[in-house]
Amino acid sequence: MPKIDLDNIKPRSGTIYPEIHHKEMEGRSSLRFSDAAGLTQFGANITILEPGAKSSLRHWHENQDEFVMVISGTATLLDDHGETELSAGECAAFPAGDANGHTIVNKSSGEVRFLAVGARTPTEVGWYSDLDMKVTIDEGGYAFTRKDGSPYPGDDT
Amino acid sequence: MPKIDLDNIKPRSGTIYPEIHHKEMEGRSSLRFSDAAGLTQFGANITILEPGAKSSLRHWHENQDEFVMVISGTATLLDDHGETELSAGECAAFPAGDANGHTIVNKSSGEVRFLAVGARTPTEVGWYSDLDMKVTIDEGGYAFTRKDGSPYPGDDT
Repeated sequence: MPKIDLDNIKPRSGTIYPEIHHKEMEGRSSLRFSDAAGLTQFGANITILEPGAKSSLRHWHENQDEFVMVISGTATLLDDHGETELSAGECAAFPAGDANGHTIVNKSSGEVRFLAVGARTPTEVGWYSDLDMKVTIDEGGYAFTRKDGSPYPGDDT
Repeated sequence: MPKIDLDNIKPRSGTIYPEIHHKEMEGRSSLRFSDAAGLTQFGANITILEPGAKSSLRHWHENQDEFVMVISGTATLLDDHGETELSAGECAAFPAGDANGHTIVNKSSGEVRFLAVGARTPTEVGWYSDLDMKVTIDEGGYAFTRKDGSPYPGDDT
């Protein structure tokens, strides 16, 4: 069936970030359905943010377009321009290679849900705007390092 | 700015379908923002359906994944399984190559809005489930024909 049975998808929490960033990622979970639905060319998943939570460390992608649409609640986009509120039905686009690091945070007192769509590419490099950290993804998996490629403190990958 | 300024996007109506299908596509319009936002790897646009309108002739894609999420109103998905209601926040996925032709229609008395995401590929063939029609897309543009490649009645492409 093409319809996604959202009620029967268990939210997943946790993060692949290095261990020293685990605490600040608490309060984020996601409904990850696009793999099970057979989508291979882009990912489409729902992120749930409790009050105070963030969707990611502020970052940008070299190779992959990203897009978000808020489903419910009031989200705040943080990027190089500052803070921008996004309410239900509002959208933001992050083209590959645009070095404007971004994240979505929940500064409200209620839950935020948003749809996140990301292209799939065989390799990727992501850069973290507020940290000396990057992620490199290839057929062997992913690795977090400093921006010069040296080991990142607390990386357990 | 990554945020999409939806209030300043003029809805576009009309269709590229052969002329004999123009009448039945009335009541559909779209907010097409992803090209202007710099997205090249997938398209993300909002379709608006007045009561009685449909998003497309029922079809499936050989090469391009598709995904929809209802933003407001109550939509009805028509596919080989019959009719499935999709309310705000509900989603459906249509993997490339799955020959389950689909369309979204508005059987309600209010407006329906939904987000549609589609992969971008250099070439594409789309098949129309309820018609002797297909569309072929390549670097030269698009062409509607009968399924055997012969001219489609009323095609003006």
